[in-house]
Amino acid sequence: MADKAQLQEAIKTQGEVVRKLKSEKASKEQIDEEVAKLLQLKAQLGGDEGKHVFVLKTAKGTRDYNPKQMAIREKVFNIIISCFKRHGAETIDTPVFELKETLTGKYGEDSKLIYDLKDQGGELLSLRYDLTVPFARYLAMNKITNIKRYHIAKVYRRDNPAMTRGRYREFYQCDFDIAGQYDAMIPDAECLKIVYEILNELDLGDFHIKVNDRRILDGMFAVCGVPDEKFRTICSTVDKLDKMAWEDVKKEMVNEKAPAEQNGADEAGVSVGSVAGGGRYDGLVGMFDPKGRKVPCVGVSIGIERIFSIMEQKAETSSEKVRTTETQVLVASAQKNLLEERLKLTSELWNAGVKAEVLYKKNPKLLSQLQHCEETGIPLVAILGEQELKDGVVKLRNVASREEVRLIVSQIVYNLSCILTKHFD
Amino acid sequence: MADKAQLQEAIKTQGEVVRKLKSEKASKEQIDEEVAKLLQLKAQLGGDEGKHVFVLKTAKGTRDYNPKQMAIREKVFNIIISCFKRHGAETIDTPVFELKETLTGKYGEDSKLIYDLKDQGGELLSLRYDLTVPFARYLAMNKITNIKRYHIAKVYRRDNPAMTRGRYREFYQCDFDIAGQYDAMIPDAECLKIVYEILNELDLGDFHIKVNDRRILDGMFAVCGVPDEKFRTICSTVDKLDKMAWEDVKKEMVNEKAPAEQNGADEAGVSVGSVAGGGRYDGLVGMFDPKGRKVPCVGVSIGIERIFSIMEQKAETSSEKVRTTETQVLVASAQKNLLEERLKLTSELWNAGVKAEVLYKKNPKLLSQLQHCEETGIPLVAILGEQELKDGVVKLRNVASREEVRLIVSQIVYNLSCILTKHFD
Repeated sequence: MADKAQLQEAIKTQGEVVRKLKSEKASKEQIDEEVAKLLQLKAQLGGDEGKHVFVLKTAKGTRDYNPKQMAIREKVFNIIISCFKRHGAETIDTPVFELKETLTGKYGEDSKLIYDLKDQGGELLSLRYDLTVPFARYLAMNKITNIKRYHIAKVYRRDNPAMTRGRYREFYQCDFDIAGQYDAMIPDAECLKIVYEILNELDLGDFHIKVNDRRILDGMFAVCGVPDEKFRTICSTVDKLDKMAWEDVKKEMVNEKAPAEQNGADEAGVSVGSVAGGGRYDGLVGMFDPKGRKVPCVGVSIGIERIFSIMEQKAETSSEKVRTTETQVLVASAQKNLLEERLKLTSELWNAGVKAEVLYKKNPKLLSQLQHCEETGIPLVAILGEQELKDGVVKLRNVASREEVRLIVSQIVYNLSCILTKHFD
Repeated sequence: MADKAQLQEAIKTQGEVVRKLKSEKASKEQIDEEVAKLLQLKAQLGGDEGKHVFVLKTAKGTRDYNPKQMAIREKVFNIIISCFKRHGAETIDTPVFELKETLTGKYGEDSKLIYDLKDQGGELLSLRYDLTVPFARYLAMNKITNIKRYHIAKVYRRDNPAMTRGRYREFYQCDFDIAGQYDAMIPDAECLKIVYEILNELDLGDFHIKVNDRRILDGMFAVCGVPDEKFRTICSTVDKLDKMAWEDVKKEMVNEKAPAEQNGADEAGVSVGSVAGGGRYDGLVGMFDPKGRKVPCVGVSIGIERIFSIMEQKAETSSEKVRTTETQVLVASAQKNLLEERLKLTSELWNAGVKAEVLYKKNPKLLSQLQHCEETGIPLVAILGEQELKDGVVKLRNVASREEVRLIVSQIVYNLSCILTKHFD
């Protein structure tokens, strides 16, 4: 543990860093990061009463999904998964971490962005950097030579986050890949069709799909007199044309400062403005096979985080409210002392498959029960009252229109199912 | 890097360890583990041609899910999620890692089982150990005092794995929790109802739900003369009655070797043979709040890995084949040179929402196309032929019954939708 005076000194210095950034009007992200460091130092010092003070934040470059964001995420995933299933794909899952050496030599200079786990005895592990390398490991390990699979999962990169633009350190990849020795271009064409279908259904507006083959570029390099061994580095520099001005790219090319190739695989097309990318990687599985047996692969990855950002912004500006629950009926009461009756009816509805809620109060006010419906978008409320119970009926109210019908208690479950099928499904 | 002679020596020694275990007929798990170490040493040495040899395995205590296991997993999740939604729950998600200090002081002596990330500069991070602590951090961070949420995600524990019994180092938790100040026992009762509904629907056979309150046990301790400060340690020992003989528990109690309490929260009821557990944890959120403001919580966690194991075993012994795709029609051809026609029809089917596949061969044999249907359970095959195309028709064959009908090409999409609705949905 650092000693107290040292800590206090560090807090003072860090406080100055934060003040300086604020006075310079630095970016919110940058300030937040330095404030977090300051809070963490303060936390180490402990509160006045010796009570531990927590820094309440998620790790840098990560975020929680709140219920509204989850509702949007579910909608996007449903569209994507339906498309993958429509194309007859299976799905697999792999662990969040791999043996460190499984990832070694697959990402060139980007390897520095891999999250390693601490050596706590046992194997050396790293968090997966993408879903492609674990897929190739899975194929080689299980000697699978043919599969069409999708995999939707989070991957991890110690990159510089830009969360407002949908760039995180923990983010989803939605991958669809076809592995196997097939006739030329048929699986490749299906990958393009899939990107088309998904972007179309997500209704994000117009889009372009760019198709290329790196060998065309290689041919151009050859004509220009680029030596063979410089092809890959020059190629990486060309890739940057999406993010950098031609002048800067040219400078990098001529000065041959191009970094090592991003990926051993023949991946192509993922640029900053893009929401999907993919390509062939015929050599990757062979890197895992003890005898170097190759399994040709082609696949596509949907950049879901940017899509989430766009959909969230759309939801913000739209007048339509995003519901975060699917509750169809609230079981309410107009008088006191009806808790047991409310619970009984709710339970019967659950047993019949109706999505129902009840407030966790012994004697809730009718107004607060109706307010709960309005806040969360529950369309129907079943109102129990003493007189109605005596008559063997329940009032069912449409929250929006305030229309009411009386239903016979013993038939309410059946009646409600009919009403819900007619009006709300 | 270790030097070559040293490595060869280590390989020899490890080889002997493996041989000894095999001759002693040690458990498969134990042998596999030592074999993995041997392979890892051999990998460090490299192949004869200096080529790197990979150890093809997943990290200890983790596994891949193959498509069949994924199909079972999806079925189980659907049942559980439907139940949570029926009860009006929202869902959230949190990052796979938290700041290390978020987890500090929450798990007593089990803290040693937390996976830490390597310090690569920046924050100190750990993989989440459960979903409850991240949930409490989320509530405190966002000042949420009322929520009913479920969260299904993987958690990580460096525990001794027993994979055949469904105990992994990476495993799913399915949590349902109600946070908020409510009238006594109403949310608690809903948690029990949820466990009942889920176990019932999963159709795992008879089950018991045990309900208790630790304060009853505390009362018994007081009567027995256990000093107040020993309550929690003695309580942990009592918890072991499910796994240990009374004699051993008694010894631990009397010798007061009981470890620290498992959890600061009032969790209760999770034992080895159990598939669900839960309880109140009214103090946890307050541990995160700077002013110690409490949010009472109660929740339940479904032990999904044991349920997967049971369902997988059921599927093994059942005669019913688990399908791993949902494909409804294979578009096939009886003659050569019909690739374009096959792709065109497949594309039309996809556009109409029909789940369709086509083999990635220019000229596949009809037999191999029919075999693909039988192997993967595709119920229908649309067979294109030159004569039929001239006549403007397509043969649609039911793979199981071999019945055939002829459909007019221009109407096939509509007809197929009708047939699928009638027979297969």
